[in-house]
Amino acid sequence: MGKLEQDFATYRARMNERVLAEDNRVIKRVYSVDSLAYAEEGALPKQTRELLGLVASLVLRCDDCVKYHLVEARSAGSSRREMVEAMSIGLVVGGTIVIPHLRRAVEFLDDLEAQAGAGDSG
Amino acid sequence: MGKLEQDFATYRARMNERVLAEDNRVIKRVYSVDSLAYAEEGALPKQTRELLGLVASLVLRCDDCVKYHLVEARSAGSSRREMVEAMSIGLVVGGTIVIPHLRRAVEFLDDLEAQAGAGDSG
Amino acid sequence: MGKLEQDFATYRARMNERVLAEDNRVIKRVYSVDSLAYAEEGALPKQTRELLGLVASLVLRCDDCVKYHLVEARSAGSSRREMVEAMSIGLVVGGTIVIPHLRRAVEFLDDLEAQAGAGDSG
Amino acid sequence: MGKLEQDFATYRARMNERVLAEDNRVIKRVYSVDSLAYAEEGALPKQTRELLGLVASLVLRCDDCVKYHLVEARSAGSSRREMVEAMSIGLVVGGTIVIPHLRRAVEFLDDLEAQAGAGDSG
Amino acid sequence: MGKLEQDFATYRARMNERVLAEDNRVIKRVYSVDSLAYAEEGALPKQTRELLGLVASLVLRCDDCVKYHLVEARSAGSSRREMVEAMSIGLVVGGTIVIPHLRRAVEFLDDLEAQAGAGDSG
Amino acid sequence: MGKLEQDFATYRARMNERVLAEDNRVIKRVYSVDSLAYAEEGALPKQTRELLGLVASLVLRCDDCVKYHLVEARSAGSSRREMVEAMSIGLVVGGTIVIPHLRRAVEFLDDLEAQAGAGDSG
Repeated sequence: MGKLEQDFATYRARMNERVLAEDNRVIKRVYSVDSLAYAEEGALPKQTRELLGLVASLVLRCDDCVKYHLVEARSAGSSRREMVEAMSIGLVVGGTIVIPHLRRAVEFLDDLEAQAGAGDSG
Repeated sequence: MGKLEQDFATYRARMNERVLAEDNRVIKRVYSVDSLAYAEEGALPKQTRELLGLVASLVLRCDDCVKYHLVEARSAGSSRREMVEAMSIGLVVGGTIVIPHLRRAVEFLDDLEAQAGAGDSG
Repeated sequence: MGKLEQDFATYRARMNERVLAEDNRVIKRVYSVDSLAYAEEGALPKQTRELLGLVASLVLRCDDCVKYHLVEARSAGSSRREMVEAMSIGLVVGGTIVIPHLRRAVEFLDDLEAQAGAGDSG
Repeated sequence: MGKLEQDFATYRARMNERVLAEDNRVIKRVYSVDSLAYAEEGALPKQTRELLGLVASLVLRCDDCVKYHLVEARSAGSSRREMVEAMSIGLVVGGTIVIPHLRRAVEFLDDLEAQAGAGDSG
Repeated sequence: MGKLEQDFATYRARMNERVLAEDNRVIKRVYSVDSLAYAEEGALPKQTRELLGLVASLVLRCDDCVKYHLVEARSAGSSRREMVEAMSIGLVVGGTIVIPHLRRAVEFLDDLEAQAGAGDSG
Repeated sequence: MGKLEQDFATYRARMNERVLAEDNRVIKRVYSVDSLAYAEEGALPKQTRELLGLVASLVLRCDDCVKYHLVEARSAGSSRREMVEAMSIGLVVGGTIVIPHLRRAVEFLDDLEAQAGAGDSG
């Protein structure tokens, strides 16, 4: 796990726990339908659904959501080239306003892979 | 071709022609990169890229863009169940604000299929 | 029920039925959490939650969602003055881009009240 | 005044009157600051400010706002080529999701000019 | 005042002063209508209007605006449970793209309350 | 070059290089049409087109894009008063949700000018 990914995952886990501790039924159900949407079974492969979540996140310009789906798409088997191509669709649809988010996404991909490489040699 | 699809396709073709007749180089190049993004060859199948375009369009709530990608995804081989599942990702990511667009998308799908059925029996 | 409200309600009911007939679990659950969010019981009165839904819809510029929450807020007891004040918050937060949606919202309010008046005299 | 422009202007005037009749101070002041922003005097020429309003409206994908600023930019002296170039910036920044709005903007420009021509010969 | 709130309030005050020092009439009037919208008197209680501002800010995904309205809603008497419920409406309307902003909002609420508690014991 | 501008420019250049190293044709062409849109020649002066890019970036609330166009507009000859006036249009169109981005834009302008002043005395 890379530095950027680690920071993101730690904060995300800690605060999701705090959010769910509010004990609000609506919030809990939204979290639950979110899990369901990317579950293993479905008409489309999980890998494709993660790419759909990635592109939706990119055009809505949510960096944390992009990071999350990059991690998930990668662990579902998507190659870097496929993830970048998926993001290129988001860039065309969403315009140059997406570019700063694309830069951060590529930085995050670099972080993921550098650390994965470091892990391999460990 | 269904009634809704026909109206959409006719208006779209007529006005794209008018837009390109402005002879603005930037606009022409955006149209051209748009075609390139959904071209046959790529790291991801065209069918997947059309679904990515569909979800991006849905969360950005552009009815005409949704229609376009439904037509394209369908002709690239996506089943109704796959297109609806792709849109369900858009609904989760984009929230209930997406629902009115989902209703119009399903109406358009009905139109596409009713007419396809009618055509089959013709 | 006014002409605009009638058209909206009829289309909405018909297409929601079609959407749910897709038998997609994620979509069904989003519809269900949507109902839960505006249910009777809660920390805030239902009337307040309808106004929250109204303002969220207005700043996200979804005419159909605005219509829906105007109907619901009104039947939960909000006065026209309160609904308009709620929308004025949306106008300030969302900017002049909201104005065309505000015009359509006021037109819809006029329709709701004209018909309510007609009904009273019936 | 063209058919599209006429319909737009009539509805806009009628409903703005209704909106202001709500007698909500916040709404009135937003309308007033809107007028001030595009007033004659300023650091930038009114013509430039109308183009800024046009591009802001286009990337936020508000058809009615686009129409309004096309009318205003044109009457402040912008040529069709300049307005289209301004919109091409919006297309690049906002992405292909802007295309359907660009089509409607060009249709509106055609309407404005056809009628202007008709008027000249009257 | 908590650490997060302090940093936010300090930066906000300092930069608002710089923004207003530009001496731009349009900007000043927008600031002034912003104050008016959340003033004490109104058809709806100030507390409700702060919750409306909170939800509008959340669905438009503006962290700083969310922070501001959390501070204001709290000082107008809203309980944590009410603010969280208001945000749950924003989550449903705006979708999972809102989750990262909800995490930061809850972190900010924790900060506000921890410091309020510390203050009580001082 | 100021501290904020330096950090921004360094990160931007480094990551744009990484993004283009992905060797994705669609991404490359979007970068290329982006350059074309703000090229020297055009129906509108480059300075005006930079202000159009600035306002589009502001209403879409992209801080990095705002920074970029402030640098470009300034070097194309726009005065601070003109850039602020352009942003005031964005504030009116986009609403108070734009204010946090306006604060950061003014901070960036201060940084640009302080350093320009420092450079002059060097």
